Amino acid sequence: MADRVKRLTVELGARSYPIYIGSGLLGQAEYYQAHIPAGRQVMVVTNETVAPLYLEPLRAALNHCTVNQVILPDGEAYKTLEVWQRIFDALLQQRYDRQSTLIALGGGVVGDMAGFAAATYQRGVHYIQVPTTLLSQVDSSVGGKTGVNHPLGKNMIGAFYQPDCVIADIATLDTLEDRQLSAGLAEVIKYGLIEDAEFFTWLEGNMTALVERNREALAFAVRRSCADKAAVVAADEREQGRRALLNLGHTFGHAIETGMGYGEWLHGEAVAVGICLAAELSYRHGWIARDQVRRVVRLMQQAGLPTRAPDTLSAEQFMQLMTVDKKVMDGKLRLVLLHAVGKSVVTDAFDPAKLLAVLQT
Amino acid sequence: MADRVKRLTVELGARSYPIYIGSGLLGQAEYYQAHIPAGRQVMVVTNETVAPLYLEPLRAALNHCTVNQVILPDGEAYKTLEVWQRIFDALLQQRYDRQSTLIALGGGVVGDMAGFAAATYQRGVHYIQVPTTLLSQVDSSVGGKTGVNHPLGKNMIGAFYQPDCVIADIATLDTLEDRQLSAGLAEVIKYGLIEDAEFFTWLEGNMTALVERNREALAFAVRRSCADKAAVVAADEREQGRRALLNLGHTFGHAIETGMGYGEWLHGEAVAVGICLAAELSYRHGWIARDQVRRVVRLMQQAGLPTRAPDTLSAEQFMQLMTVDKKVMDGKLRLVLLHAVGKSVVTDAFDPAKLLAVLQT
Repeated sequence: MADRVKRLTVELGARSYPIYIGSGLLGQAEYYQAHIPAGRQVMVVTNETVAPLYLEPLRAALNHCTVNQVILPDGEAYKTLEVWQRIFDALLQQRYDRQSTLIALGGGVVGDMAGFAAATYQRGVHYIQVPTTLLSQVDSSVGGKTGVNHPLGKNMIGAFYQPDCVIADIATLDTLEDRQLSAGLAEVIKYGLIEDAEFFTWLEGNMTALVERNREALAFAVRRSCADKAAVVAADEREQGRRALLNLGHTFGHAIETGMGYGEWLHGEAVAVGICLAAELSYRHGWIARDQVRRVVRLMQQAGLPTRAPDTLSAEQFMQLMTVDKKVMDGKLRLVLLHAVGKSVVTDAFDPAKLLAVLQT
Repeated sequence: MADRVKRLTVELGARSYPIYIGSGLLGQAEYYQAHIPAGRQVMVVTNETVAPLYLEPLRAALNHCTVNQVILPDGEAYKTLEVWQRIFDALLQQRYDRQSTLIALGGGVVGDMAGFAAATYQRGVHYIQVPTTLLSQVDSSVGGKTGVNHPLGKNMIGAFYQPDCVIADIATLDTLEDRQLSAGLAEVIKYGLIEDAEFFTWLEGNMTALVERNREALAFAVRRSCADKAAVVAADEREQGRRALLNLGHTFGHAIETGMGYGEWLHGEAVAVGICLAAELSYRHGWIARDQVRRVVRLMQQAGLPTRAPDTLSAEQFMQLMTVDKKVMDGKLRLVLLHAVGKSVVTDAFDPAKLLAVLQT
């Protein structure tokens, strides 16, 4: 097994860290021992869904440390300051010190909250991510974005904070619901589209294997996605420029999520539709061919993802929601659009009438 | 007036920033214009005591920007996550974007909360400090510590975050209560003791002028204190080593604050007593002479500060409170002690029996 483990480094100078990718890593003590000195205090942050599945094997692999856990309710609706405070209650009740390590065991919500707690407990403690969903393995593993939602906006309170390491155990994807797996694949496809045409082509040839949870295919997809994202983030950690490409489909997607009420649509589902709309809009400007749009839509469908916006969201409503997105608060709507499969740009040089037309289809 | 303004740079590489020190700076537009581009959104965070005094002159100096304010209740008791959230409510209700600037107008509590909000609003926005108390001018101006209290511990939730600049207006000290001025002087004296014997001697010669609020003397003391702290922080931004010297008197002081209930003793008053106890303990180990302890106590008294622990706090209680301080959570009590006036060390090599004896006097 061990020879199949891939190690990838996210290059961020003094904040560089490794991502380990393979099957069965979660229960292997050596990975934790490499990053947590013996005797340290470890707080595992997880949720009610993941704890029954993976908390015990994780704890067993941490027997060189003092371990406690905080089990949060599951779901984006609980990514609030109020729920987040429970992590501090646990840390302080158990007298955790500045050398402590927080481990996020779960998906993106757990990672965002645990990471933000690690960033701010006593002004910063150690942090390890053990992502158990495809989305969190390919997305939150890289980039250091942490935070919680505010009633007036998603991810409005947070910090950039890098983990000590990420342990991406492909075997945990076995227990993932189909719908969640598909949602993760939307982000995987995104990396191919942004700037890795070769990977996009690989995905076209291997989508069936991925949907059938072939571990080797999944491990490859996770690794390639992380490597692609790491290259972007290394060049632009604080999202001043190129990193904005990672938002392909997201301004559309956030509008769908908000318009339909959080929880109705999964983030990845909304992003899948957003990517299809971005492709369509790019086509209508003559930047990509009709056939390229078809490739995008087909791959999303093969991944089990929606490709059309919900009927209940009017084009006007949709447009309105897009303009209040965090990324456009300075008044100018900028979108990530395609110049080819594998070539994307951030631009405000699109025709609003064409955008409205796309939203009306 | 302008020729009297002193500019000091806190050297932190890419995060370096200037501190402007002088009388009447708060209402001078040029300092804000140098750090906030025209048209930007500015949110002033202040409190009910400071707002009536200085909010209008500050707003008048910001007429090149869009300005709103959040007025918080005054006092350490309000340095909570709940009160802190009001800053986010204001920012989001007014649709403040990622380019926004937060200005902290007030003392340490306002600065800690505004700074922590700036560190975390949309994962970090611009931040300017306008400290209006002596304590915040000589302490919070340098070092980037921000945060709020948790019911189970002071400053347990926070971040290191550096401002774009600090505008320390000595004239604002005119409206400061005597007790608050003295509390600030405790930290000023601390800088001399830690590693600036020359400054300590200057303070001995000028304490009367400081207490009488001679602006020139105050400006010098603020500048020298900031320069001393900046040198320590530049060498150790994240408090891995030397920065711990800044905690001289603080482990004792926090015990007094907690033991007496927050608000009873001002932080500076508790620190003053803590410094006297640290000097006494150093003397009992033979590290400094009796006369040096006397110099410390005398200077504190001249500054209008207490020099003895409250009678109602038993030595055992005191000891117990010291061992739960944040800085000693890993089990070992380390103290900052003196090897001379102007020479301090962080050490756990003291005799606990001698410590108990000092606490009993």
